[in-house]
Amino acid sequence: MKITDIQERTVSIASDISNAYIDFSKMTVSVVAVYTDAVIDGSQVVGYGFNSNGRYSQGSLLRERIIPRIREADPMGLLDDEARNLDPFKMWKIMMQNEKPGGHGERCVAVGVIDMAVWDVVAKIERKPLYQLLAERFSNGEFLDKVFVYAAGGYYYPGKGDNQLQAEMKSYLDQGYDTVKMKIGRSGLEEDLRRIDAVLEVVGDANQLAVDANGRFDLETAIHYTRALEPYGLRWFEEAGDPLDYKLQADLTRHYKHSMATGENIFSHQDTRNLVRYAGMRPELDILQMDPVLSYGLVEYLKMVDVVKEQGFSAQNCIPHGGHQFALNIAAGLGLAGNESYPEVFAPFGGFADNTPVENGRIALPDAPGVGFEAKSSLNTLFKKLFH
Amino acid sequence: MKITDIQERTVSIASDISNAYIDFSKMTVSVVAVYTDAVIDGSQVVGYGFNSNGRYSQGSLLRERIIPRIREADPMGLLDDEARNLDPFKMWKIMMQNEKPGGHGERCVAVGVIDMAVWDVVAKIERKPLYQLLAERFSNGEFLDKVFVYAAGGYYYPGKGDNQLQAEMKSYLDQGYDTVKMKIGRSGLEEDLRRIDAVLEVVGDANQLAVDANGRFDLETAIHYTRALEPYGLRWFEEAGDPLDYKLQADLTRHYKHSMATGENIFSHQDTRNLVRYAGMRPELDILQMDPVLSYGLVEYLKMVDVVKEQGFSAQNCIPHGGHQFALNIAAGLGLAGNESYPEVFAPFGGFADNTPVENGRIALPDAPGVGFEAKSSLNTLFKKLFH
Repeated sequence: MKITDIQERTVSIASDISNAYIDFSKMTVSVVAVYTDAVIDGSQVVGYGFNSNGRYSQGSLLRERIIPRIREADPMGLLDDEARNLDPFKMWKIMMQNEKPGGHGERCVAVGVIDMAVWDVVAKIERKPLYQLLAERFSNGEFLDKVFVYAAGGYYYPGKGDNQLQAEMKSYLDQGYDTVKMKIGRSGLEEDLRRIDAVLEVVGDANQLAVDANGRFDLETAIHYTRALEPYGLRWFEEAGDPLDYKLQADLTRHYKHSMATGENIFSHQDTRNLVRYAGMRPELDILQMDPVLSYGLVEYLKMVDVVKEQGFSAQNCIPHGGHQFALNIAAGLGLAGNESYPEVFAPFGGFADNTPVENGRIALPDAPGVGFEAKSSLNTLFKKLFH
Repeated sequence: MKITDIQERTVSIASDISNAYIDFSKMTVSVVAVYTDAVIDGSQVVGYGFNSNGRYSQGSLLRERIIPRIREADPMGLLDDEARNLDPFKMWKIMMQNEKPGGHGERCVAVGVIDMAVWDVVAKIERKPLYQLLAERFSNGEFLDKVFVYAAGGYYYPGKGDNQLQAEMKSYLDQGYDTVKMKIGRSGLEEDLRRIDAVLEVVGDANQLAVDANGRFDLETAIHYTRALEPYGLRWFEEAGDPLDYKLQADLTRHYKHSMATGENIFSHQDTRNLVRYAGMRPELDILQMDPVLSYGLVEYLKMVDVVKEQGFSAQNCIPHGGHQFALNIAAGLGLAGNESYPEVFAPFGGFADNTPVENGRIALPDAPGVGFEAKSSLNTLFKKLFH
């Protein structure tokens, strides 16, 4: 078999939401289709990929550097040893030809988008859901039937008051989530404590609420927050400071006895290794949120999981950023602690397959082969519109 | 005054050279012109910028994200308090609007290219060479009359033997350089020792020769190399391992008593801070090579210099990657230990002003206002061709 074409389209996911660091007024996503000459049940096998939110589309980088390397490679060099399917690891090496080490931004998104589409192809050709294929290849065949997902929301938008925030959080509970997350850090501690109190009126138990500062705080502010948040016993306190300020994170864990989380802005196994080496993260408490698409795809994510295990962490520390069906497959296939979910934003890229309701904070995956995009009608419709 | 237009052109610097990690067969550079409505001596003030080699052009990222933010900003918000000149620090913040923290690759190149052009404008409007302006703003007015430069060469190319390598190094000495650098790490220690011995026949003193592995080695190989290189007393051993593997670097410094160098693939002050915090670099010995263009420009480089000083290093530890007139201005204006030079490659972007010969390993800078591009005829000719 061989790849016959790769196409990219840039799609806007602009909205009026903000976190403490950026707004999403011009946010875009790259969507790719990897066409093959493989045919299953009379249909051409096509794999799809797109990037998680937050880091913009990468169409030009794909067209200028990544896709040409695939096109110019020996087609046999992209295949597994039996030449019956794509080999994501060989493809990864080809995509990264003549890329210097270090500097893990943007290109990691471009490579990740193709990587998602390649895994979609691989699992479709194997006629298996991706989570099953991943479990067979990397987890002794054991996958999770249901995956913990939490509702990531509580974004800022113009005119949003505490009542709307409460209504939003209540809607997540009504949808079956038992854990919710809200943004903090935009307007000071006093306002944040008021907002947290308002949300806790709805969700009840502080262990069901995580807060996310999106890397906004300096050490002094972050310590100020940990002291004020400590008595609550929140589910976790996410991205207090700059994602690369490992010392700040290490200082904070000494001030805060509950869970902390970070990793969505760490895009390589090298950076992840530094995070678990230097940031004082606690295997018994803390959450690692590296995103398997924004960071060079699943091939690199597997290396990330390896390096965190070398430092005493496990899959139970990992809850990826991203909130989409691909990351959900990875969580199920590798036995991760859970996966992010965006019930209100980033659709149709965010969100999971149709007819898989969240129950008691957990969600099932469909039996569809590949990532399961064909079992998510809104996304499937968009792919058909973009590529046909 | 105001910016009237910003244009980008992508230019190939493809060649058949390689280091231990990549080849340069498809290497490109972004060149930008920042047009203003300022007029000096009857001529419109235009600033020019381009990226250092090794990280590819960023035209699309510039056109899609960075330049629109400048265009859409309040023009007064780009100016200094007297509204007479551009303010590179305000412009930097505008260029980085709605960019999440972390992920320092590619966009850092795009921002750096504009930053170079902005500083060119600023110094031209002040009618001063950039090094003088930098010295006045950041170094109590004291700049270096001459800057140490070393000849970075010894690349691999097809059919290149020891004789060619020796001839190349001899030509650098003949041009006035007293320190040269060669690539290692592509074909094993035995061959590298033979190549090093060959070069030392020409340069004489091992303290005049640096070697550069471009991040190729794992810890075991790197230790193997340090043991073999130790007796030579080379000028420095550069990028032995992955640029983000601070622990590898820290382990190596315990095995090697001579200078080591790294930093060209470290693209933010956050990553630089981690380097000086964790990599065991020795202020009395080691060289920090962060590139002021590839890493978000001079605005970020000033922060980098601050964070290295906080960890006990000084400007005397800094010899930037890049090999162009902009980095040379920074070295002269901030009193750095020196600057890279590429006598044979990356022209016309690499290389310095006309009529500034290297003497005893040091080079002077022209009196031309701005970066001094107008005193470098090959580059000036290219700019005129690209933008007129």
